[in-house]
Amino acid sequence: MKAAVMRAGALRVDELPDPVPEAGQVLVKTLACGICGSDLHALQHSHELVNASREVGASFDFDPDRDVVMGHEFCVEILDHGPGTQGTLPLGSRACSLPVVAGRDGAAATVGYSNDYPGGYGELMVLNEDLLLPVPNGLSTEHAALTEPLAVGWHAVAKANLQGDETPLVIGCGPVGLAVIAALKKRGVGPIVAADFSPTRRAMAEALGADDIIDPAQDSPYTRWAQRGGYDAPPDPLGANAFSKPVMFECVGVPGVIEQLMLAAPRDARIVVVGVCMEHDRIQPFQGIVKELSLQFVLAYTAEEFGHTLQLLGDGEMDGQAMLTGRVGLSGVVQAFQDLGDPEAHAKILVEPWRS
Amino acid sequence: MKAAVMRAGALRVDELPDPVPEAGQVLVKTLACGICGSDLHALQHSHELVNASREVGASFDFDPDRDVVMGHEFCVEILDHGPGTQGTLPLGSRACSLPVVAGRDGAAATVGYSNDYPGGYGELMVLNEDLLLPVPNGLSTEHAALTEPLAVGWHAVAKANLQGDETPLVIGCGPVGLAVIAALKKRGVGPIVAADFSPTRRAMAEALGADDIIDPAQDSPYTRWAQRGGYDAPPDPLGANAFSKPVMFECVGVPGVIEQLMLAAPRDARIVVVGVCMEHDRIQPFQGIVKELSLQFVLAYTAEEFGHTLQLLGDGEMDGQAMLTGRVGLSGVVQAFQDLGDPEAHAKILVEPWRS
Repeated sequence: MKAAVMRAGALRVDELPDPVPEAGQVLVKTLACGICGSDLHALQHSHELVNASREVGASFDFDPDRDVVMGHEFCVEILDHGPGTQGTLPLGSRACSLPVVAGRDGAAATVGYSNDYPGGYGELMVLNEDLLLPVPNGLSTEHAALTEPLAVGWHAVAKANLQGDETPLVIGCGPVGLAVIAALKKRGVGPIVAADFSPTRRAMAEALGADDIIDPAQDSPYTRWAQRGGYDAPPDPLGANAFSKPVMFECVGVPGVIEQLMLAAPRDARIVVVGVCMEHDRIQPFQGIVKELSLQFVLAYTAEEFGHTLQLLGDGEMDGQAMLTGRVGLSGVVQAFQDLGDPEAHAKILVEPWRS
Repeated sequence: MKAAVMRAGALRVDELPDPVPEAGQVLVKTLACGICGSDLHALQHSHELVNASREVGASFDFDPDRDVVMGHEFCVEILDHGPGTQGTLPLGSRACSLPVVAGRDGAAATVGYSNDYPGGYGELMVLNEDLLLPVPNGLSTEHAALTEPLAVGWHAVAKANLQGDETPLVIGCGPVGLAVIAALKKRGVGPIVAADFSPTRRAMAEALGADDIIDPAQDSPYTRWAQRGGYDAPPDPLGANAFSKPVMFECVGVPGVIEQLMLAAPRDARIVVVGVCMEHDRIQPFQGIVKELSLQFVLAYTAEEFGHTLQLLGDGEMDGQAMLTGRVGLSGVVQAFQDLGDPEAHAKILVEPWRS
C-alpha cells in the first residue's frame, strides 16, 4: 500500500507492505484521516515525545528510528474480516474506531503512534473488530472523521465538572479550542467567551457556538470574560465563591499560557489544561495558592465519550463543519503539515489516501 | 506595649503604643502565638510577598517599609471590651480568633500582616468581638494556639475531596505536613504514608498518626506508597482509574517539588499543594496531561473549619502536642526564627510575650 511515512524525522510517500489482520482484527481502507497538532509535534520532536511517554507509561511508545505511519482521526471502510472475527459490520460499510489496537502480545498500541500498526496516513489499516463503531445515520465520512478531535473537547468539558451555569472562557481556538466550544454549546453551558489572535479561527469559534469572541491584540479576554459574568464576587481571602467556580480552558499548549491563565484567574477558578505543551513550563505557585486555583490536565477521551461524540454527530446534535479547511491526498501531506502552521490558512485538514 | 517588630527586614523588640479597640473590638493579651513558616518568608521577602499579594487582591497588604508586628496563630485573654461590644466573653477568659480584623474603613485586614493591627508577637492586640471563639473544655493555651496551623491541614484535606478509602501520601512533615497528617488521621483516612528527610519530623509524623514514614534518602516514598496501596491499577491511557483517585499532599513549598510529584504521580492523581512556594517554579505540563493529573492549590481555611478545628482540640479529638517544640519570650523571637531553619531542632515554637 501507499502511505505517508514518518522516517528519520521527515514525511515521505512510500510503498509499504499491506497490513495483515490478526485474530479479531479487520482490514480497512482509510477514507479520511485528520491531521492532528500532536502529529506535527511528533514529526519534529519524536524522540522527546517517546521519552516523555515512556517515563509515565503512556502509549506513544514507538521507535522513532523506525517507520511510523501516523494518523489517528479516521473514518474507514471495512475491506476484509480477519481470522476469528464475527463479521459484525458488513464489508463495504463505514466505521470509526478509537485509535487503539490490541498488539500481538495482548498489549494495546496506539494506532498512528506505532511501528507495528499503520495509522490513517496510509491506504490500509488493521483495527480490532470489537472497537469498531458504524457510522450512523448516513453521516458524511468527513464529519465522521471529526469524531476523534471533537471527543477531545467533549472529554475536556466532562472533566471540568461543570454545574451548568458557568460562563466558560476558552483561550485558543485551534481544533482543540473549537472542539471545547462545540462541546460546551451542545451541553448548553454559556455564554461561551473565547479568544484567539486569528480572525479565521475567531470566525470558526463563532460558527461552532462561541458567544463572545475576543482578539487579545485588541482587548483583554479576561476583562471581557468578567464583564460577561465569568466570575462575580471580588476575591474574598477567607470565603468560598458563592457561585459556580469560574472555569477556563487552556487550548493553546505553548509555554507561558498556563502561567498567564493563573495570573488572570479569579479566586477558586478551575483551569482545564487541554492544550498539549510538551516543553518545560514556568508557573508561580503563589498565584495558585492565594487564589486556591485548581489545574485539571486532560487528555483524550474514554471509549464511551468517543462513541457518544460519534452519535451526536450522526444525530446532527453536533457539527464540526466549521473547522474543516482542507483535503489532501498522500502527495499533499507534507505541504499540509506546513500549511497547518498558519492559523489563517487552516484548522483541520483531512488526508484522503485514496485520492490520486 | 512590648513587641517583636519587623522593621526594615529585621526583627527587634521595641516599645510600641498600646492598640486601642474600636467599635466592636476587644483588647486582648497575647498568651501564646505560634511562629509560622510564612512569617520567616515575610521577614526575608516582604516586598515580594506584598507585591505578589497585591497582584491577586490577597490580603497580605501592608507597607513593608513601616512597622509590622507579625503573629497570626494565637490564643488570647480578654482584657477589655471596646465601644459597641456585647461583652459576649467575660474579661479574663481565653479565646482564639481567625487572624482577621475589620479595619477602620470596613475592609478586612490580616492580623499579623498589617501596619495597623499588631499580631501575636506583641503583648496586646485588638480583635473583633464577633470573631472570638472561647477556648473550650479547659483546653490548654498552648494547644489552643495550634488551632490555626491545624486548621490549615483540616482545610487542605477538605479540599482534597476524599472518598475515604484513599491511601494518601504526604510529602514533607513540617508543621503543614503534620497538620495534614493530623486531619487525615482524624478523618480516618489511611494508611497515611509520609516522607521527610528529618528523623525528628518523621517521629512527629508518627506521633500525629502517619502509618508508614519514609526517609527519602533511604527509600523512594513513591515506591513505598505504591506498595501500601496508594494506587493499584497500572496506567491505562484510555480508562479511568477504577479506584478512588490517588492523592498526594505537597507540604514542602520549595521550587521543584511540584514537578517531582507530577513526575512520580500515577494516572488520575490529585496533588493538593499546601506548601507555600513564593518563587517561580518549573513544571512539565506533558506529565500532567498524559496522566490527567489535577493540582489543587489551597490556602488557609474557612471560618467554619477554624472553629471546627478548635472544637476538635477541645474535645480531645485532635492533638497537636507532637509538633510543639519550643516556647520563647519576646527576647527569644529572633533566635527562634533562626532555630526554625533547622528541622532537627524545631517544628513549632510558641511566642509568649508575657514571659520575661
